[in-house]
Amino acid sequence: MNTRPLIFVTNDDGYQTKGIRLLIDILRPLGDVVVVAPKVEMSGKSHSITTGLPLKLQTIYKGEHYEEYALEGTPVDCVKMGFDNVLKRRPDFLFAGINMGANTSINTIYSGTMAAVMEGCAEHVASVGFSLCDNDKNASLVECEPFVRKIVDEVLRNGLDDSVCLNVNFPCGEIKGIKVGHQAEGYWTEEFDKSIEEDGHTIFWLGGEYHCTDKNPDADWNAVNDGYAAIVPMQVDFTAWKFLDKTKKRFENI
Amino acid sequence: MNTRPLIFVTNDDGYQTKGIRLLIDILRPLGDVVVVAPKVEMSGKSHSITTGLPLKLQTIYKGEHYEEYALEGTPVDCVKMGFDNVLKRRPDFLFAGINMGANTSINTIYSGTMAAVMEGCAEHVASVGFSLCDNDKNASLVECEPFVRKIVDEVLRNGLDDSVCLNVNFPCGEIKGIKVGHQAEGYWTEEFDKSIEEDGHTIFWLGGEYHCTDKNPDADWNAVNDGYAAIVPMQVDFTAWKFLDKTKKRFENI
Repeated sequence: MNTRPLIFVTNDDGYQTKGIRLLIDILRPLGDVVVVAPKVEMSGKSHSITTGLPLKLQTIYKGEHYEEYALEGTPVDCVKMGFDNVLKRRPDFLFAGINMGANTSINTIYSGTMAAVMEGCAEHVASVGFSLCDNDKNASLVECEPFVRKIVDEVLRNGLDDSVCLNVNFPCGEIKGIKVGHQAEGYWTEEFDKSIEEDGHTIFWLGGEYHCTDKNPDADWNAVNDGYAAIVPMQVDFTAWKFLDKTKKRFENI
Repeated sequence: MNTRPLIFVTNDDGYQTKGIRLLIDILRPLGDVVVVAPKVEMSGKSHSITTGLPLKLQTIYKGEHYEEYALEGTPVDCVKMGFDNVLKRRPDFLFAGINMGANTSINTIYSGTMAAVMEGCAEHVASVGFSLCDNDKNASLVECEPFVRKIVDEVLRNGLDDSVCLNVNFPCGEIKGIKVGHQAEGYWTEEFDKSIEEDGHTIFWLGGEYHCTDKNPDADWNAVNDGYAAIVPMQVDFTAWKFLDKTKKRFENI
Protein backbone atom coordinates (compact mmCIF):
# COMPACT_ATOMS: atom_id res chain seq x y z
CA MET A 1 0.00 0.00 0.00
CA ASN A 2 1.28 3.43 -0.92
CA THR A 3 1.29 5.53 2.25
CA ARG A 4 2.98 8.55 0.76
CA PRO A 5 0.52 11.45 0.82
CA LEU A 6 -0.32 13.23 -2.42
CA ILE A 7 0.59 16.89 -1.99
CA PHE A 8 -0.40 19.71 -4.33
CA VAL A 9 1.66 22.90 -4.38
CA THR A 10 1.01 26.30 -5.93
CA ASN A 11 1.60 30.01 -5.33
CA ASP A 12 0.88 33.41 -6.88
CA ASP A 13 4.42 34.72 -7.34
CA GLY A 14 5.17 32.28 -10.17
CA TYR A 15 6.73 28.80 -10.28
CA GLN A 16 10.33 29.96 -10.44
CA THR A 17 10.33 32.13 -7.33
CA LYS A 18 12.31 31.55 -4.18
CA GLY A 19 9.35 30.95 -1.87
CA ILE A 20 7.80 28.06 -3.78
CA ARG A 21 11.22 26.49 -4.44
CA LEU A 22 11.85 26.26 -0.68
CA LEU A 23 8.33 24.92 -0.06
CA ILE A 24 8.88 22.23 -2.72
CA ASP A 25 12.25 21.31 -1.17
CA ILE A 26 10.58 20.89 2.22
CA LEU A 27 7.69 18.82 0.85
CA ARG A 28 9.37 16.45 -1.62
CA PRO A 29 10.83 14.08 1.01
CA LEU A 30 7.42 13.90 2.70
CA GLY A 31 5.17 12.71 -0.13
CA ASP A 32 4.36 12.61 -3.82
CA VAL A 33 4.39 16.23 -4.87
CA VAL A 34 2.60 17.80 -7.85
CA VAL A 35 3.17 21.47 -8.56
CA VAL A 36 0.95 23.54 -10.83
CA ALA A 37 1.91 27.18 -10.41
CA PRO A 38 1.50 30.35 -12.49
CA LYS A 39 4.08 30.87 -15.20
CA VAL A 40 4.32 34.56 -14.31
CA GLU A 41 3.49 36.63 -11.25
CA MET A 42 -0.21 36.64 -10.35
CA SER A 43 -0.18 38.62 -7.10
CA GLY A 44 -3.39 40.47 -6.28
CA LYS A 45 -5.41 38.24 -8.57
CA SER A 46 -7.56 37.07 -5.68
CA HIS A 47 -10.03 34.34 -6.61
CA SER A 48 -10.21 35.35 -10.27
CA ILE A 49 -10.60 32.64 -12.88
CA THR A 50 -9.91 32.69 -16.60
CA THR A 51 -13.10 32.35 -18.59
CA GLY A 52 -13.40 33.01 -22.31
CA LEU A 53 -9.65 32.74 -22.80
CA PRO A 54 -7.66 29.52 -23.16
CA LEU A 55 -5.13 28.26 -20.63
CA LYS A 56 -1.73 26.85 -21.60
CA LEU A 57 -0.03 24.23 -19.42
CA GLN A 58 3.70 23.65 -19.69
CA THR A 59 5.34 20.51 -18.31
CA ILE A 60 8.47 21.46 -16.39
CA TYR A 61 9.27 18.04 -14.91
CA LYS A 62 7.51 14.68 -14.77
CA GLY A 63 8.90 11.90 -12.57
CA GLU A 64 7.48 9.08 -10.44
CA HIS A 65 7.19 11.02 -7.20
CA TYR A 66 7.41 14.58 -8.47
CA GLU A 67 5.69 16.54 -11.22
CA GLU A 68 5.87 20.24 -11.97
CA TYR A 69 3.83 22.34 -14.40
CA ALA A 70 3.62 26.05 -15.20
CA LEU A 71 0.23 27.45 -16.18
CA GLU A 72 -0.52 30.69 -17.99
CA GLY A 73 -3.35 31.42 -15.57
CA THR A 74 -4.28 32.59 -12.10
CA PRO A 75 -3.58 30.67 -8.86
CA VAL A 76 -7.20 29.45 -8.76
CA ASP A 77 -6.89 28.33 -12.40
CA CYS A 78 -3.83 26.35 -11.24
CA VAL A 79 -5.82 24.58 -8.53
CA LYS A 80 -8.68 23.78 -10.91
CA MET A 81 -6.29 22.59 -13.62
CA GLY A 82 -4.29 20.56 -11.11
CA PHE A 83 -7.23 18.88 -9.44
CA ASP A 84 -9.19 18.14 -12.58
CA ASN A 85 -6.63 17.66 -15.29
CA VAL A 86 -3.25 16.75 -13.82
CA LEU A 87 -3.76 14.76 -10.61
CA LYS A 88 -5.06 11.21 -10.88
CA ARG A 89 -6.95 11.58 -7.62
CA ARG A 90 -7.90 14.37 -5.22
CA PRO A 91 -4.75 15.33 -3.28
CA ASP A 92 -4.46 14.83 0.48
CA PHE A 93 -2.97 18.27 1.04
CA LEU A 94 -2.53 21.63 -0.65
CA PHE A 95 0.23 24.03 0.32
CA ALA A 96 0.60 27.50 -1.23
CA GLY A 97 3.45 30.00 -1.02
CA ILE A 98 5.77 30.90 0.44
CA ASN A 99 4.40 34.28 -0.65
CA MET A 100 6.63 37.34 -0.55
CA GLY A 101 4.31 39.89 1.02
CA ALA A 102 1.84 39.95 3.91
CA ASN A 103 -1.50 38.20 3.59
CA THR A 104 -2.75 39.35 6.97
CA SER A 105 -6.02 41.17 7.69
CA ILE A 106 -8.04 42.41 4.68
CA ASN A 107 -5.10 41.52 2.41
CA THR A 108 -6.34 37.94 2.51
CA ILE A 109 -9.13 38.91 0.16
CA TYR A 110 -6.80 40.31 -2.53
CA SER A 111 -4.34 37.45 -2.26
CA GLY A 112 -3.88 34.88 -5.02
CA THR A 113 -2.04 32.62 -2.57
CA MET A 114 -4.92 32.53 -0.12
CA ALA A 115 -7.45 32.21 -2.97
CA ALA A 116 -5.71 28.97 -4.00
CA VAL A 117 -5.91 27.81 -0.38
CA MET A 118 -9.62 28.68 -0.16
CA GLU A 119 -10.23 26.82 -3.44
CA GLY A 120 -8.52 23.74 -1.99
CA CYS A 121 -10.60 24.09 1.16
CA ALA A 122 -13.81 24.34 -0.88
CA GLU A 123 -12.76 21.06 -2.51
CA HIS A 124 -12.38 19.47 0.96
CA VAL A 125 -8.59 19.25 0.78
CA ALA A 126 -6.51 20.18 3.86
CA SER A 127 -4.98 23.46 2.67
CA VAL A 128 -2.42 25.87 4.10
CA GLY A 129 -1.00 29.14 2.79
CA PHE A 130 2.38 30.56 3.87
CA SER A 131 3.40 34.20 3.50
CA LEU A 132 6.40 36.22 4.62
CA CYS A 133 5.59 39.83 5.50
CA ASP A 134 8.32 41.20 3.27
CA ASN A 135 7.73 42.38 -0.30
CA ASP A 136 11.39 41.92 -1.26
CA LYS A 137 11.49 39.05 -3.75
CA ASN A 138 14.90 38.06 -2.39
CA ALA A 139 14.00 38.29 1.29
CA SER A 140 15.61 35.69 3.54
CA LEU A 141 13.52 32.64 4.36
CA VAL A 142 16.02 31.30 6.91
CA GLU A 143 14.00 32.32 9.96
CA CYS A 144 10.68 31.00 8.74
CA GLU A 145 11.92 27.69 7.30
CA PRO A 146 11.87 25.75 10.63
CA PHE A 147 8.32 27.01 11.30
CA VAL A 148 7.15 25.96 7.85
CA ARG A 149 8.60 22.50 8.55
CA LYS A 150 6.87 22.26 11.95
CA ILE A 151 3.48 23.37 10.62
CA VAL A 152 3.73 21.08 7.60
CA ASP A 153 4.63 18.13 9.86
CA GLU A 154 1.69 18.79 12.17
CA VAL A 155 -0.76 19.13 9.25
CA LEU A 156 0.55 16.02 7.48
CA ARG A 157 0.29 14.03 10.73
CA ASN A 158 -3.16 15.12 11.87
CA GLY A 159 -4.86 16.79 8.88
CA LEU A 160 -7.28 19.69 9.24
CA ASP A 161 -10.99 19.83 9.97
CA ASP A 162 -13.09 19.73 6.84
CA SER A 163 -13.99 23.25 5.70
CA VAL A 164 -11.13 24.86 7.62
CA CYS A 165 -7.86 26.03 6.05
CA LEU A 166 -4.90 27.87 7.55
CA ASN A 167 -3.46 31.27 6.73
CA VAL A 168 0.11 31.49 8.05
CA ASN A 169 2.07 34.77 8.04
CA PHE A 170 5.67 35.17 9.14
CA PRO A 171 7.29 38.37 10.40
CA CYS A 172 10.57 39.64 8.98
CA GLY A 173 13.58 38.56 10.97
CA GLU A 174 13.56 36.58 14.20
CA ILE A 175 10.36 34.68 15.04
CA LYS A 176 9.36 34.51 18.71
CA GLY A 177 6.86 31.65 18.30
CA ILE A 178 3.39 30.98 16.89
CA LYS A 179 0.19 32.88 17.74
CA VAL A 180 -3.20 31.63 16.55
CA GLY A 181 -5.82 34.34 16.20
CA HIS A 182 -8.33 36.02 13.91
CA GLN A 183 -8.09 38.10 10.75
CA ALA A 184 -7.32 41.63 11.97
CA GLU A 185 -9.86 44.33 11.27
CA GLY A 186 -8.38 47.03 9.09
CA TYR A 187 -8.64 48.84 5.79
CA TRP A 188 -6.58 50.50 3.07
CA THR A 189 -6.60 54.14 2.18
CA GLU A 190 -5.76 54.34 -1.47
CA GLU A 191 -3.52 56.93 -2.92
CA PHE A 192 -3.59 56.93 -6.67
CA ASP A 193 -0.47 58.32 -8.31
CA LYS A 194 -1.48 60.30 -11.37
CA SER A 195 0.42 60.92 -14.55
CA ILE A 196 -0.50 62.42 -17.92
CA GLU A 197 -0.06 60.38 -21.08
CA GLU A 198 1.12 61.76 -24.42
CA ASP A 199 -2.48 61.94 -25.66
CA GLY A 200 -3.43 64.08 -22.66
CA HIS A 201 -5.25 61.33 -20.79
CA THR A 202 -4.70 61.02 -17.07
CA ILE A 203 -3.63 57.58 -15.90
CA PHE A 204 -3.73 56.32 -12.33
CA TRP A 205 -1.45 53.90 -10.47
CA LEU A 206 -2.92 52.16 -7.46
CA GLY A 207 -0.98 52.61 -4.25
CA GLY A 208 -2.05 53.02 -0.67
CA GLU A 209 -1.51 52.53 3.01
CA TYR A 210 -2.91 49.89 5.36
CA HIS A 211 -4.53 50.89 8.65
CA CYS A 212 -5.12 48.31 11.37
CA THR A 213 -8.11 49.12 13.59
CA ASP A 214 -7.83 45.93 15.65
CA LYS A 215 -6.33 46.27 19.14
CA ASN A 216 -6.38 42.54 19.98
CA PRO A 217 -2.80 41.21 20.15
CA ASP A 218 -4.02 37.87 18.74
CA ALA A 219 -5.20 39.54 15.50
CA ASP A 220 -2.88 38.36 12.71
CA TRP A 221 -1.50 41.78 11.75
CA ASN A 222 -0.66 42.54 15.41
CA ALA A 223 0.86 39.12 16.07
CA VAL A 224 3.19 39.50 13.08
CA ASN A 225 4.17 43.00 14.14
CA ASP A 226 4.97 41.63 17.60
CA GLY A 227 7.38 39.16 15.98
CA TYR A 228 5.17 36.04 15.98
CA ALA A 229 4.17 33.72 13.16
CA ALA A 230 0.41 34.29 12.89
CA ILE A 231 -1.96 31.42 12.08
CA VAL A 232 -5.63 32.14 11.29
CA PRO A 233 -8.06 29.24 10.72
CA MET A 234 -10.22 30.30 7.78
CA GLN A 235 -13.41 29.19 6.04
CA VAL A 236 -14.94 29.78 2.61
CA ASP A 237 -18.37 30.64 4.00
CA PHE A 238 -18.99 34.42 3.92
CA THR A 239 -22.39 34.24 5.68
CA ALA A 240 -22.66 36.68 8.60
CA TRP A 241 -24.40 34.05 10.76
CA LYS A 242 -24.88 36.37 13.73
CA PHE A 243 -27.03 38.65 11.58
CA LEU A 244 -29.16 35.96 9.97
CA ASP A 245 -32.22 36.22 12.24
CA LYS A 246 -32.20 40.00 12.22
CA THR A 247 -31.93 40.10 8.42
CA LYS A 248 -34.73 37.54 8.15
CA LYS A 249 -37.05 39.71 10.26
CA ARG A 250 -36.21 42.85 8.29
CA PHE A 251 -36.39 41.61 4.72
CA GLU A 252 -38.63 38.54 4.45
CA ASN A 253 -41.89 40.46 4.57
CA ILE A 254 -41.11 43.77 2.89
CA MET B 1 -29.06 70.75 4.71
CA ASN B 2 -28.64 68.25 1.92
CA THR B 3 -30.56 65.14 2.93
CA ARG B 4 -30.11 63.30 -0.36
CA PRO B 5 -27.99 60.23 0.27
CA LEU B 6 -24.79 59.77 -1.70
CA ILE B 7 -25.05 56.48 -3.57
CA PHE B 8 -22.19 54.68 -5.34
CA VAL B 9 -22.98 52.21 -8.11
CA THR B 10 -20.83 49.65 -9.90
CA ASN B 11 -20.99 46.18 -11.45
CA ASP B 12 -18.79 43.64 -13.19
CA ASP B 13 -20.61 43.26 -16.50
CA GLY B 14 -19.55 46.72 -17.70
CA TYR B 15 -21.14 50.19 -17.47
CA GLN B 16 -23.25 49.84 -20.60
CA THR B 17 -25.08 46.66 -19.67
CA LYS B 18 -28.78 46.29 -19.04
CA GLY B 19 -28.54 45.37 -15.36
CA ILE B 20 -26.64 48.44 -14.21
CA ARG B 21 -28.76 50.76 -16.39
CA LEU B 22 -31.91 49.57 -14.58
CA LEU B 23 -30.21 49.88 -11.20
CA ILE B 24 -29.17 53.47 -12.03
CA ASP B 25 -32.73 54.29 -13.18
CA ILE B 26 -34.09 53.01 -9.88
CA LEU B 27 -31.54 54.90 -7.77
CA ARG B 28 -31.33 58.32 -9.46
CA PRO B 29 -34.61 59.65 -8.03
CA LEU B 30 -33.54 58.53 -4.55
CA GLY B 31 -30.22 60.30 -4.09
CA ASP B 32 -27.05 61.73 -5.60
CA VAL B 33 -25.67 58.89 -7.68
CA VAL B 34 -22.06 58.35 -8.74
CA VAL B 35 -21.28 55.43 -11.03
CA VAL B 36 -17.79 54.08 -11.59
CA ALA B 37 -18.08 50.81 -13.47
CA PRO B 38 -15.76 48.73 -15.64
CA LYS B 39 -15.48 49.79 -19.26
CA VAL B 40 -15.60 46.17 -20.37
CA GLU B 41 -16.85 42.95 -18.85
CA MET B 42 -14.99 41.89 -15.71
CA SER B 43 -16.97 38.83 -14.65
CA GLY B 44 -15.05 36.24 -12.64
CA LYS B 45 -12.43 38.81 -11.62
CA SER B 46 -13.27 38.32 -7.96
CA HIS B 47 -11.43 40.70 -5.64
CA SER B 48 -8.51 41.22 -8.01
CA ILE B 49 -6.87 44.63 -8.17
CA THR B 50 -4.68 46.19 -10.82
CA THR B 51 -1.15 46.71 -9.56
CA GLY B 52 1.83 47.57 -11.73
CA LEU B 53 -0.41 48.68 -14.59
CA PRO B 54 -2.08 52.07 -14.92
CA LEU B 55 -5.83 52.65 -14.79
CA LYS B 56 -7.70 54.91 -17.20
CA LEU B 57 -10.87 56.71 -16.12
CA GLN B 58 -13.31 58.01 -18.71
CA THR B 59 -15.97 60.58 -17.82
CA ILE B 60 -19.31 59.54 -19.32
CA TYR B 61 -21.51 62.17 -17.67
CA LYS B 62 -21.02 64.81 -14.99
CA GLY B 63 -24.02 66.68 -13.60
CA GLU B 64 -25.08 68.11 -10.24
CA HIS B 65 -26.85 65.03 -8.93
CA TYR B 66 -25.45 62.37 -11.25
CA GLU B 67 -21.98 61.40 -12.38
CA GLU B 68 -20.89 58.40 -14.41
CA TYR B 69 -17.41 57.10 -15.20
CA ALA B 70 -16.03 54.05 -17.01
CA LEU B 71 -12.79 52.57 -15.71
CA GLU B 72 -10.41 50.24 -17.51
CA GLY B 73 -10.09 48.11 -14.41
CA THR B 74 -11.72 45.50 -12.20
CA PRO B 75 -14.83 46.07 -10.07
CA VAL B 76 -12.68 46.47 -6.94
CA ASP B 77 -10.49 48.98 -8.81
CA CYS B 78 -13.75 50.86 -9.54
CA VAL B 79 -14.64 51.01 -5.84
CA LYS B 80 -11.16 52.15 -4.86
CA MET B 81 -11.06 54.74 -7.65
CA GLY B 82 -14.56 55.93 -6.83
CA PHE B 83 -14.07 56.24 -3.10
CA ASP B 84 -10.63 57.80 -3.23
CA ASN B 85 -10.52 59.79 -6.41
CA VAL B 86 -14.04 60.62 -7.60
CA LEU B 87 -16.33 61.04 -4.59
CA LYS B 88 -15.90 64.09 -2.40
CA ARG B 89 -16.88 62.12 0.69
CA ARG B 90 -17.44 58.49 1.63
CA PRO B 91 -20.78 57.42 0.12
CA ASP B 92 -23.75 56.42 2.27
CA PHE B 93 -24.55 53.38 0.17
CA LEU B 94 -23.04 51.11 -2.46
CA PHE B 95 -25.17 49.07 -4.84
CA ALA B 96 -23.68 46.63 -7.37
CA GLY B 97 -25.31 44.81 -10.29
CA ILE B 98 -27.78 43.83 -11.44
CA ASN B 99 -25.47 41.00 -12.44
CA MET B 100 -26.49 38.61 -15.20
CA GLY B 101 -25.58 35.25 -13.68
CA ALA B 102 -25.95 33.61 -10.26
CA ASN B 103 -23.78 34.72 -7.37
CA THR B 104 -25.13 32.11 -4.99
CA SER B 105 -23.12 29.59 -2.97
CA ILE B 106 -19.38 29.31 -3.75
CA ASN B 107 -19.90 31.55 -6.81
CA THR B 108 -19.79 34.50 -4.44
CA ILE B 109 -16.03 34.06 -4.20
CA TYR B 110 -15.43 34.30 -7.97
CA SER B 111 -17.81 37.20 -8.44
CA GLY B 112 -16.61 40.69 -9.31
CA THR B 113 -20.02 42.09 -8.31
CA MET B 114 -19.83 40.68 -4.81
CA ALA B 115 -16.14 41.64 -4.52
CA ALA B 116 -17.17 45.27 -5.06
CA VAL B 117 -19.83 44.84 -2.37
CA MET B 118 -17.30 43.29 0.04
CA GLU B 119 -14.89 46.17 -0.67
CA GLY B 120 -17.64 48.67 0.19
CA CYS B 121 -18.42 46.73 3.35
CA ALA B 122 -14.74 46.74 4.36
CA GLU B 123 -14.88 50.53 3.98
CA HIS B 124 -17.89 50.63 6.33
CA VAL B 125 -20.38 51.59 3.62
CA ALA B 126 -23.82 49.90 3.56
CA SER B 127 -23.41 47.69 0.46
CA VAL B 128 -25.74 45.43 -1.50
CA GLY B 129 -25.17 43.26 -4.58
CA PHE B 130 -27.98 42.17 -6.92
CA SER B 131 -27.75 39.23 -9.32
CA LEU B 132 -30.22 37.51 -11.62
CA CYS B 133 -29.66 33.77 -11.97
CA ASP B 134 -29.67 33.91 -15.75
CA ASN B 135 -26.50 34.18 -17.85
CA ASP B 136 -28.37 35.62 -20.84
CA LYS B 137 -27.19 39.23 -21.19
CA ASN B 138 -30.64 40.18 -22.46
CA ALA B 139 -32.61 38.34 -19.79
CA SER B 140 -35.78 40.08 -18.60
CA LEU B 141 -35.51 42.13 -15.41
CA VAL B 142 -39.25 42.78 -15.20
CA GLU B 143 -39.87 40.26 -12.40
CA CYS B 144 -36.99 41.33 -10.20
CA GLU B 145 -37.40 45.12 -10.59
CA PRO B 146 -40.09 45.52 -7.87
CA PHE B 147 -37.94 43.47 -5.47
CA VAL B 148 -34.86 45.58 -6.20
CA ARG B 149 -36.98 48.68 -5.44
CA LYS B 150 -38.27 47.23 -2.16
CA ILE B 151 -34.83 46.13 -0.96
CA VAL B 152 -33.25 49.45 -1.96
CA ASP B 153 -36.01 51.36 -0.12
CA GLU B 154 -35.55 49.32 3.05
CA VAL B 155 -31.75 49.73 2.98
CA LEU B 156 -31.93 53.48 2.26
CA ARG B 157 -34.43 53.92 5.12
CA ASN B 158 -32.70 51.86 7.79
CA GLY B 159 -29.13 51.24 6.63
CA LEU B 160 -27.21 48.06 7.39
CA ASP B 161 -25.19 46.97 10.40
CA ASP B 162 -21.56 47.94 10.14
CA SER B 163 -19.48 45.06 8.72
CA VAL B 164 -22.52 43.36 7.14
CA CYS B 165 -23.40 43.53 3.44
CA LEU B 166 -26.15 41.81 1.46
CA ASN B 167 -25.92 39.35 -1.40
CA VAL B 168 -29.26 39.26 -3.27
CA ASN B 169 -29.98 36.68 -5.98
CA PHE B 170 -33.14 36.52 -8.07
CA PRO B 171 -34.56 33.43 -9.77
CA CYS B 172 -35.55 33.45 -13.45
CA GLY B 173 -39.21 34.16 -14.00
CA GLU B 174 -41.85 34.66 -11.34
CA ILE B 175 -40.61 35.46 -7.82
CA LYS B 176 -42.59 33.98 -4.92
CA GLY B 177 -41.11 36.25 -2.23
CA ILE B 178 -37.87 36.78 -0.32
CA LYS B 179 -35.96 34.17 1.69
CA VAL B 180 -33.06 35.15 3.92
CA GLY B 181 -30.54 32.39 4.51
CA HIS B 182 -26.92 31.33 4.31
CA GLN B 183 -24.42 30.77 1.49
CA ALA B 184 -25.19 27.25 0.24
CA GLU B 185 -22.49 24.62 0.56
CA GLY B 186 -21.46 23.34 -2.82
CA TYR B 187 -18.62 22.98 -5.27
CA TRP B 188 -17.75 22.94 -8.95
CA THR B 189 -16.45 20.01 -10.91
CA GLU B 190 -14.38 21.43 -13.69
CA GLU B 191 -14.37 20.08 -17.15
CA PHE B 192 -11.67 21.59 -19.27
CA ASP B 193 -12.37 21.55 -22.98
CA LYS B 194 -9.13 20.80 -24.80
CA SER B 195 -8.07 21.88 -28.25
CA ILE B 196 -4.77 21.69 -30.14
CA GLU B 197 -3.17 24.88 -31.44
CA GLU B 198 -1.37 25.19 -34.76
CA ASP B 199 2.00 24.86 -33.00
CA GLY B 200 0.91 21.54 -31.46
CA HIS B 201 0.32 22.94 -27.97
CA THR B 202 -2.78 21.84 -26.08
CA ILE B 203 -4.95 24.66 -24.80
CA PHE B 204 -7.65 24.36 -22.16
CA TRP B 205 -10.94 26.19 -21.77
CA LEU B 206 -12.41 26.29 -18.30
CA GLY B 207 -15.94 24.96 -18.02
CA GLY B 208 -17.70 22.95 -15.36
CA GLU B 209 -20.78 22.05 -13.41
CA TYR B 210 -21.98 23.23 -10.01
CA HIS B 211 -23.08 20.73 -7.36
CA CYS B 212 -25.06 21.87 -4.33
CA THR B 213 -24.48 19.71 -1.25
CA ASP B 214 -26.70 21.82 1.01
CA LYS B 215 -30.15 20.39 1.82
CA ASN B 216 -31.38 23.39 3.82
CA PRO B 217 -34.17 25.17 1.89
CA ASP B 218 -32.94 28.52 3.29
CA ALA B 219 -29.52 28.11 1.59
CA ASP B 220 -29.32 30.70 -1.20
CA TRP B 221 -28.95 28.26 -4.10
CA ASN B 222 -31.99 26.27 -2.89
CA ALA B 223 -34.12 29.36 -2.23
CA VAL B 224 -33.49 30.62 -5.76
CA ASN B 225 -34.26 27.22 -7.24
CA ASP B 226 -37.53 27.21 -5.27
CA GLY B 227 -38.45 30.53 -6.95
CA TYR B 228 -37.53 32.93 -4.13
CA ALA B 229 -35.26 35.96 -4.11
CA ALA B 230 -32.41 34.89 -1.81
CA ILE B 231 -30.73 37.34 0.55
CA VAL B 232 -27.55 36.36 2.43
CA PRO B 233 -26.04 38.75 5.00
CA MET B 234 -22.28 38.57 4.40
CA GLN B 235 -19.07 39.67 6.11
CA VAL B 236 -15.48 40.24 5.00
CA ASP B 237 -14.02 38.29 7.91
CA PHE B 238 -12.84 34.82 6.81
CA THR B 239 -11.84 33.66 10.30
CA ALA B 240 -13.29 30.26 11.21
CA TRP B 241 -14.12 31.44 14.74
CA LYS B 242 -15.49 28.08 15.89
CA PHE B 243 -12.10 26.51 15.26
CA LEU B 244 -9.99 29.19 16.92
CA ASP B 245 -9.50 27.49 20.31
CA LYS B 246 -8.82 24.10 18.78
CA THR B 247 -6.28 25.58 16.35
CA LYS B 248 -4.65 27.48 19.22
CA LYS B 249 -4.20 24.28 21.23
CA ARG B 250 -2.78 22.41 18.26
CA PHE B 251 -0.35 24.92 16.82
CA GLU B 252 0.81 27.38 19.46
CA ASN B 253 3.29 25.01 21.09
CA ILE B 254 4.57 22.84 18.26
